[in-house]
Amino acid sequence: MKQDKNIPYKIYLEENEMPTAWYNVRADMKNKPAPLLNPTTHEPMGHDDLSPVFCDELIEQELNDTDAYIEIPQEIRDFYKMYRPSPLVRAYCLEEKLDTPAKIYYKFEGNNTSGSHKLNSAIAQAYYAKKQGLKGVTTETGAGQWGTALSMACSYFDLDCKVYMVKVSYEQKPFRREVMRTYGASVTPSPSETTAIGRKILAEHPGTTGSLGCAISEAVEVATSNDGYRYVLGSVLNQVLLHQSIIGMETKIAMDKYGIVPDVIIGCAGGGSNLGGLISPFMGEKLRGEKDYRIIAVEPASCPSFTRGKFAYDFCDTGNICPLAKMYTLGSGFIPSANHAGGLRFHGMSSTLSQLYHDGLMEAVAVEQTSVFQAAEQFARVEGILPAPESSHAIKAAIDEALKCKETGEEKTIVFGLTGTGYFDMVAYEKFHNGDMTDYIPTDAELQVGFDGIPKFPGNEF
Amino acid sequence: MKQDKNIPYKIYLEENEMPTAWYNVRADMKNKPAPLLNPTTHEPMGHDDLSPVFCDELIEQELNDTDAYIEIPQEIRDFYKMYRPSPLVRAYCLEEKLDTPAKIYYKFEGNNTSGSHKLNSAIAQAYYAKKQGLKGVTTETGAGQWGTALSMACSYFDLDCKVYMVKVSYEQKPFRREVMRTYGASVTPSPSETTAIGRKILAEHPGTTGSLGCAISEAVEVATSNDGYRYVLGSVLNQVLLHQSIIGMETKIAMDKYGIVPDVIIGCAGGGSNLGGLISPFMGEKLRGEKDYRIIAVEPASCPSFTRGKFAYDFCDTGNICPLAKMYTLGSGFIPSANHAGGLRFHGMSSTLSQLYHDGLMEAVAVEQTSVFQAAEQFARVEGILPAPESSHAIKAAIDEALKCKETGEEKTIVFGLTGTGYFDMVAYEKFHNGDMTDYIPTDAELQVGFDGIPKFPGNEF
Repeated sequence: MKQDKNIPYKIYLEENEMPTAWYNVRADMKNKPAPLLNPTTHEPMGHDDLSPVFCDELIEQELNDTDAYIEIPQEIRDFYKMYRPSPLVRAYCLEEKLDTPAKIYYKFEGNNTSGSHKLNSAIAQAYYAKKQGLKGVTTETGAGQWGTALSMACSYFDLDCKVYMVKVSYEQKPFRREVMRTYGASVTPSPSETTAIGRKILAEHPGTTGSLGCAISEAVEVATSNDGYRYVLGSVLNQVLLHQSIIGMETKIAMDKYGIVPDVIIGCAGGGSNLGGLISPFMGEKLRGEKDYRIIAVEPASCPSFTRGKFAYDFCDTGNICPLAKMYTLGSGFIPSANHAGGLRFHGMSSTLSQLYHDGLMEAVAVEQTSVFQAAEQFARVEGILPAPESSHAIKAAIDEALKCKETGEEKTIVFGLTGTGYFDMVAYEKFHNGDMTDYIPTDAELQVGFDGIPKFPGNEF
Repeated sequence: MKQDKNIPYKIYLEENEMPTAWYNVRADMKNKPAPLLNPTTHEPMGHDDLSPVFCDELIEQELNDTDAYIEIPQEIRDFYKMYRPSPLVRAYCLEEKLDTPAKIYYKFEGNNTSGSHKLNSAIAQAYYAKKQGLKGVTTETGAGQWGTALSMACSYFDLDCKVYMVKVSYEQKPFRREVMRTYGASVTPSPSETTAIGRKILAEHPGTTGSLGCAISEAVEVATSNDGYRYVLGSVLNQVLLHQSIIGMETKIAMDKYGIVPDVIIGCAGGGSNLGGLISPFMGEKLRGEKDYRIIAVEPASCPSFTRGKFAYDFCDTGNICPLAKMYTLGSGFIPSANHAGGLRFHGMSSTLSQLYHDGLMEAVAVEQTSVFQAAEQFARVEGILPAPESSHAIKAAIDEALKCKETGEEKTIVFGLTGTGYFDMVAYEKFHNGDMTDYIPTDAELQVGFDGIPKFPGNEF
């Protein structure tokens, strides 16, 4: 195996090289992400408006678009030591297999029990909930990675944890529930009969396989109707991207240490937490005019919020009880086809990333799931790691870019986020192995149904 | 969180600190492990006798009890770089939870897709099979970790891989099969109708849930009756312990680097691969009279080969077609109760470890599975990692030792092997969560049935 001299195969930072502050990319954005709006009055929401739903200190982080660096509390840094730094790996074997002159790196976030990068924000959110003296938190989970991460974090701080899990994932990933139970969480398939909004959704859509939008509505209802509880979210929000900046900062420190400069940075995008975290310090340099990078968001063709959505204020949840966020959206009524296996099912996208995309600072591509699983298997066989379907969207795009380099002969440096492992996705892998996996691209007419649900009010033209 | 100054929370070796040779503990043993015997003639088996079953270079390693160090080929060292070094972690959070003065370290081998240490030997065995120009290899797997590891290794070297999986594990761990298929292996539940020995076992024991002994017989039959195939084994054999010495050598280098000296070294023991690997360099010092350590093997009370077995020549497989090995054994007819969830199901034990145990160089304890899962859950909640049931036997013993230190006030340094992750063991975890897990300790009469099957011949008194 070829190996560059003086660069380790896997780069791990030393403890004293680890970031001590998160980087808040909004501070460097000229066009700030639009504020959350009250769904009824359409007025921007301030701290007091948000405090029934979110933890106080997290609201501060949510609203803060001026401080570039926010210190990571020591307790969170201690927890990070349990599974961080994550390795930045040079994909030598994949390069060899593809016979490409490109240099491919991936930042691997799967080496922790939650199996993904979600733990980076879960531990932060649990910490601030504990600090505020709360009894517990509620949340939704899709693929189950966020729910598992939050369960682990709550267990660490001895907080109650109630998880609403999208029903299709609950059924496809029966063992996820047991991992969450190992960490003491309660897990309910959503939509459920345990909430008013769940009962309403079930009545209107009997047999629905659920969506993140439904599950969010249920979790928010439970948080706001129980004393000592708040709602926490694993993606989309500014605060989550802030916590996830640890991914990008470690990546940048590791690359700087060895003089590696990426040409292309690639991340999968559902709500944007991994992508936003990975790109943040690089985007910061780009925003400040110091450097330029190609940044590519990869989303499923079956849930194409960036590539086919509208940039508009929309509900984050199906029950329409959450604040309105300005984002690329397919409409809160959009539910991806049940044949879609690969996570990344949210109808909207981080406001921060939406603004950056709208301003032309990043690109987006949509890929079909069969090709994603092909890329996943190819990667697994040469690089060893069994990737999560979500992460495999980024693998697919990275392979495509590397193959373009093969054609042009360019020695580009590509870095992508390998967000997690696929141990709980074997039902989908089985479908793929048996040739039973199909692709699905919504028609314009199908998308229009979702768009019709986006609220119309002055200033929300799209 | 408290943290010792100057010692990282997790110790990772640098690439240039990695071992370049395996350590062969047999070279330092005064009483060598007894040789393998021909099951019919009871004569020691040499290279030519073994070559229909095993790869040539692996036979050399199997028989070599004089060379203390055997160089690791560059191709294997390259593969090791994909997931090694594994971290040596200080269990600060567990210590705090237990309120013990003991210092607990664990060597974590689960950060690779096979989920365990098994990959260390799988890649070596696949490499030598490829070097010999074979088409493929056959093997058995119990919990599925070895089969997964071998699938990954064979995929890397483009070798065919046929896995016979103990039926009870095949049913309890449906997704393991899909991971192996992802790496291109074929997986057959054992006993099966695909072999003569499988058909015989099924006829004699209809409804059997299988055992490693049955699966070994089937895999050996397939290897010896197909051109270009050999049989490979994930534990028990001397060669496997040799490859697994990488675990102990990394551990020792890391500890030496920071001046840490263990008082107690603990490993779970099924066939002995992890334990043998972890302890090897420490045992070497002990054998050479340089240092002394307490070394503890932990086995399930339901399959207690060390603590209740006989030290005798016995068959390694149920079909009695393999060489005889001298070892602590429950008899090749012994099949652990189906309620036993925690792996470590083999009726025998590595000859090397058996000799060391017989010579009083190590201790053994047997633990019951409910207490093992309690330890697993306690560990998961504070240390983050979801452990495999096998590994959790070592956790249980380490906790017990740490609690003794709490009573006595001794600041002992304990190191244990955390061999792998439990992502595919959620059926067992679910049973535990639901209170449906029971313990099983075989009666003396039940064990006697197994002992009655141990062959009697001159020189094999027990």
